[in-house]
Order: sequence, then structure tokens, then C-alpha cells
Amino acid sequence: LFLTTTPPHTTVAEIGEHELIARITRRLEMPAWVEVGPGDDAAVVKPPRGLREVLTTDALVDGVHFDLAFVPAAAAGHRALAVNLSDLAAMGAEPRSALLSLALPAHLAVTALDELLDGFLACASAHRTALIGGNITQTPGPLVINVTAVGTVRPRRALTRAGARPGDEIYVTGAVGDAAAGLAMLRAGAAGATAESACVRRYLKPEARVRAGLQLSHHGAASSCVDLSDGLADGLRQLARASSVGVEVETSALPISDQARAWHAATGTDPVTAALGGGDDYELLFTVRPRHRGRLRGARRRIGDLPITRIGVVTRGSSLTVRDASGCHELPPGFEHFR
Amino acid sequence: LFLTTTPPHTTVAEIGEHELIARITRRLEMPAWVEVGPGDDAAVVKPPRGLREVLTTDALVDGVHFDLAFVPAAAAGHRALAVNLSDLAAMGAEPRSALLSLALPAHLAVTALDELLDGFLACASAHRTALIGGNITQTPGPLVINVTAVGTVRPRRALTRAGARPGDEIYVTGAVGDAAAGLAMLRAGAAGATAESACVRRYLKPEARVRAGLQLSHHGAASSCVDLSDGLADGLRQLARASSVGVEVETSALPISDQARAWHAATGTDPVTAALGGGDDYELLFTVRPRHRGRLRGARRRIGDLPITRIGVVTRGSSLTVRDASGCHELPPGFEHFR
Repeated sequence: LFLTTTPPHTTVAEIGEHELIARITRRLEMPAWVEVGPGDDAAVVKPPRGLREVLTTDALVDGVHFDLAFVPAAAAGHRALAVNLSDLAAMGAEPRSALLSLALPAHLAVTALDELLDGFLACASAHRTALIGGNITQTPGPLVINVTAVGTVRPRRALTRAGARPGDEIYVTGAVGDAAAGLAMLRAGAAGATAESACVRRYLKPEARVRAGLQLSHHGAASSCVDLSDGLADGLRQLARASSVGVEVETSALPISDQARAWHAATGTDPVTAALGGGDDYELLFTVRPRHRGRLRGARRRIGDLPITRIGVVTRGSSLTVRDASGCHELPPGFEHFR
Repeated sequence: LFLTTTPPHTTVAEIGEHELIARITRRLEMPAWVEVGPGDDAAVVKPPRGLREVLTTDALVDGVHFDLAFVPAAAAGHRALAVNLSDLAAMGAEPRSALLSLALPAHLAVTALDELLDGFLACASAHRTALIGGNITQTPGPLVINVTAVGTVRPRRALTRAGARPGDEIYVTGAVGDAAAGLAMLRAGAAGATAESACVRRYLKPEARVRAGLQLSHHGAASSCVDLSDGLADGLRQLARASSVGVEVETSALPISDQARAWHAATGTDPVTAALGGGDDYELLFTVRPRHRGRLRGARRRIGDLPITRIGVVTRGSSLTVRDASGCHELPPGFEHFR
């Protein structure tokens, strides 16, 4: 409520660095294990006992990973944390803390920064993640939101990309291609492309599959795991490369939502190609040894409503194939930044 | 040596994200406590036993914190880590690991990226800091180097900004104002403004005062501490605000190098004003209780050649004053980003 004292069109340049930092830190509450929180040179925390620490960092750039022209600042703030929590989820880790580093264009409205924080902190709160530190600087370029997330995992329970073996079954959580369809809807300014549309919501507010990752780890169910940031094809390729195996995916098995199919039918695009190539889903792609199907059942009981779909099998060698009614094809390349 | 296979003018956009990441990760060696290093969704580490963890994040933007027009990429890489290690030093922490997140303009030369890493990794190696993870993305804006550094400190030994009390003596390591003079020399294209010039070197390759911070912490010598990123005046102000005290600084006591004095004499600027306002020194500013002078002597014996100069005293109230031959003056404002 103290925020209402700032006139509506004030820019971040007008209120200055120290006030911006104070504006953020006074919104925060620190758990007991944070001994020095934001506002000092660095944060000091009591590490968790008997656990391993999991650390990841990821940056979002306005105009590259989101676009403030059609993405609300709150969604950008949510996404910046969610993509990092998704990386923790892919390791089977439980989020604990985060650091937020913002490079702000001088003309950015303070209200946009507040909304960005609303989105970030709501996501942090939902995942009991403490924002323990950060940095604010100016940039002559676009807004850059850099987040570092730290989590915990039990010893020997981290899920890596490297554990898949021939014969393992390949699974994916949720639906693939929704976010890409949602982004296409937003870009096209499509009728109905509101935040109420499921695909648009999936693009704007990706949900990190933290609970699924945790349960797969706790039950020892997954032999390997990766999160889908740059599309299913890219995820399959990363997993296969790290594990030195091949993969074979059944296109008929891919969990593609009815809304995405309807969009593709209307725009004349192939839903399977879109699902393989489309990024931003932040689902978990993982493999399970056939003899560990019982463990997967155990994990599923604790994961709740999130669908988990078997989409293929790990193969010997290094070939990456998709199989449909017409036969076997080479996996198309995934999205790669810089390409 | 495998790096020589890339033609000299190749840009980062031409070789792509995966190859860029591989290019970095194959240069790295992981200590035993890193269970999963770069290349997976996140790093997994064994936390140190019986210690507190210290975390900080800081971003450098081309054109704001350095300028590739006159700062070599290796110096930018060094600086990006050094400024974070400086934050750890100000907490009395020992560096352990770092994460590096790069937002790269498409036209950046791969050789510049390699040099940036040379500088970063040389600094990391000098401080036994493992680069355990990171991220690479593209940006339509300037190069942004975001680093998160993690260190350790013994329980109850962290140095904060908040512990200064009236009567404490104020000290600073090294010399103040050298970096600002070096930057001015570079900007002016001054004769002799080469990397061999002491001030220019201080600007290009700031040394994080890790050893000094560690010894101050180990000996329980400092009641408060902050690093000087935005100038001495800003550091004094931060420390006074956090500790709810005032400060009184003797301008005649300020450790200003002969080279900086000569530069100011030649350019007609006041060396004291420059030393108070000039950023980028990354010295430590700290306070010591008078009865703990013996502890400070103990710390100094282990710190080595780095000068430590008493520059003033902590006062009751909240006034920030500098005293010179003409009397007492209000402390000038320090550099503030966005102002």
C-alpha cells in the first residue's frame, strides 16, 4: 500500500537504485535459516543438513524470451523464476532460495517493476522459495531478468540427463506444444488469445513441475530427466547425447491438447511438428527402467492430477527417430538459440 | 589448442548455443565436491560442513560497467567475477563456486568470448573458485555478464554492514580513487594509459580483497564491512545507514596514490573529491572497535603487503562529515546507478 505514493508514470531512472532496492526488500520475509538477507553485500544462509545442493542460473531477455509488448510484466517475473525452478525440478530438487539480478532500461515504469515482482514473488511463495538477494543495474538495452535458484536433493537422488539406458521407457509430463501454440496465438493477436485461453496461459505462466521432479527423485523412479525449455525434440536430443543412447518416439502417443490441435487445424500447421519443435513447455521428459514401473506408479500416486504419458523407448546406438503411420523419420532439430 | 580450429572472425551466432556451451565446459575442471557439473539442468554440490553459505549476484553491462571499446574482453571477464568475489570478501567469506550467465549480442566474436573466459577463469583459478554452471543466451542489446558467487564463512563470523558503533575506527584497504583515475585516463586516451599504468590496471583488473576479508573475519577484527564498488562516499553512506550511525572522515588520511594525484594535478581535478566519488576500487571499508586493535594487528600480519589505513571514526547520530584544513563538510553523494 505504501507503493501507491509513487506517481503512476514514474520511471525506474527517476526513483534511483537505492529506492528500487528498498522497494523490493521491504516486501520480503525471510525464513529462520537466512542469517543475513537482502541489503548487505551478500546473503548468509545456514545450509540444509545431510542434503546436496542444486544450483542453476537462467536469464530472460525482453524481445527474446518474452516480449513486454504482449506479455504482462507479472508474467515475465513469474517466468523468470519458473524456468529456474523447472531446472531444479528436472534434477529432482526442492527449491529453497533464489537471487534476482535485474538490468533495467531507464524508461521502464516503476509500476511495471512492481508487477514483475508481483509475478516473481507469487511464484516464489507457491514454491516456498526465499528471495535472499539480488542486484539492480541499468542497461541501455532491453530488460534482462537473471535468476539463480538454489535447491536441495537427497544424496544420490539427483536426476541427471546421463542415466538413460537402452530399453528404458520415455515419459513426458503434461502436454507438449501448448506454450508454442499460445505464443503463436498472442503473436497473431488471435481472437480468444486472452489469459483465459489454456494455451496462452501455459505460455504466459509456465508451471515448473517441481512436485513431479521431487516424487520421481524420492521414489528412485527415473533413470534420467531433463526439462523442456526448447522443445521436445531438443530435450530428446540432450538426453540421448548425455546418456549416449538413441531414442524412438511414437508420434501417436504425444500428449497434444485439444486446444493446440484446434489451433493447428485452423492455421494449417502440423501439430506433431509443432509439439516437437515448440519451446517453453517446461514439462519434464524422463526415462524409466522397465523393472522400475512400480516405482513410477508410486511416484504418480503422489504427483496428483498431472498427466504422465509414455511416448517412446530408449534405443541402442545414437539414432533419434520418430515413428508415425508412414514409418520412421529422423527427429527434426529443436530450437537452438543463436541459430 | 582445439580453439584454433575456429576461423578468426567467427561470431557467436555462427557457432550456436550448444557449441558455445561445450566450448566453455571443456575448459573446466571440477573439484571432488561437485557431483554434477556444467552441462546438466543444474549443478549438484556437496555443501561444506559446519559453515554458513554466502551468496551474491552482480551483473556487468557493456557500456555501463565497462566498455568493450577500450576494455579488453579478458578484463571484462575478470571484472565480472572479481566484483562478486569482492562482495564475498566484504562478508569475510571464502569463495567456493560461481555460476556465469551470459547474454551475448549475435555479432560478438567467438575470440572475444574466449578472451572473456580467459579473464574469468584466471580470476576463478586465483581464488580457487569452481565455475559449476551457467547459461548462454542471445540479446539484441549489449553484452551482459551476470555472475553468482557462493562462498563460506564460519558461523557468527560474517561481516555485515550493520555492526558499526560510535567510537569505532574506520579503515580502508589499499588506495581509493585509483580506478576512477584509470578509467578517466582510458577515456581521455591519455598518453601512458596502457595496461602497464597502475591506475589503469586497477580499473581494468580490480583485485577482490578476499584475503583481507577472510583475515578480518577469522580474527573477529571488524565490527562492520562493505566493499567499495560505487565510491568511498557511497560506501560510508551504506555503512552508516545500515548501522544507524554517523561517520567523520579525515581527508588528509585518505590513501590516494601518487599516480592518481599526478593525474588529478595534470587535469585540474580535486583528488579528494575524486577519491570520495570515484567507483570501481573494490577495496574494503570496515570499522574496528578501539579495544579490538590487537585483533586488527593479528589480521594485518596475515594479510600481507596490502596497506590498511585509518581514515576516520564512527559517530553518534546520523551526520556524515569529511574534515579538512578548512573545517567540516557534508559528505558528497556517491555514484548511484540510474541517477
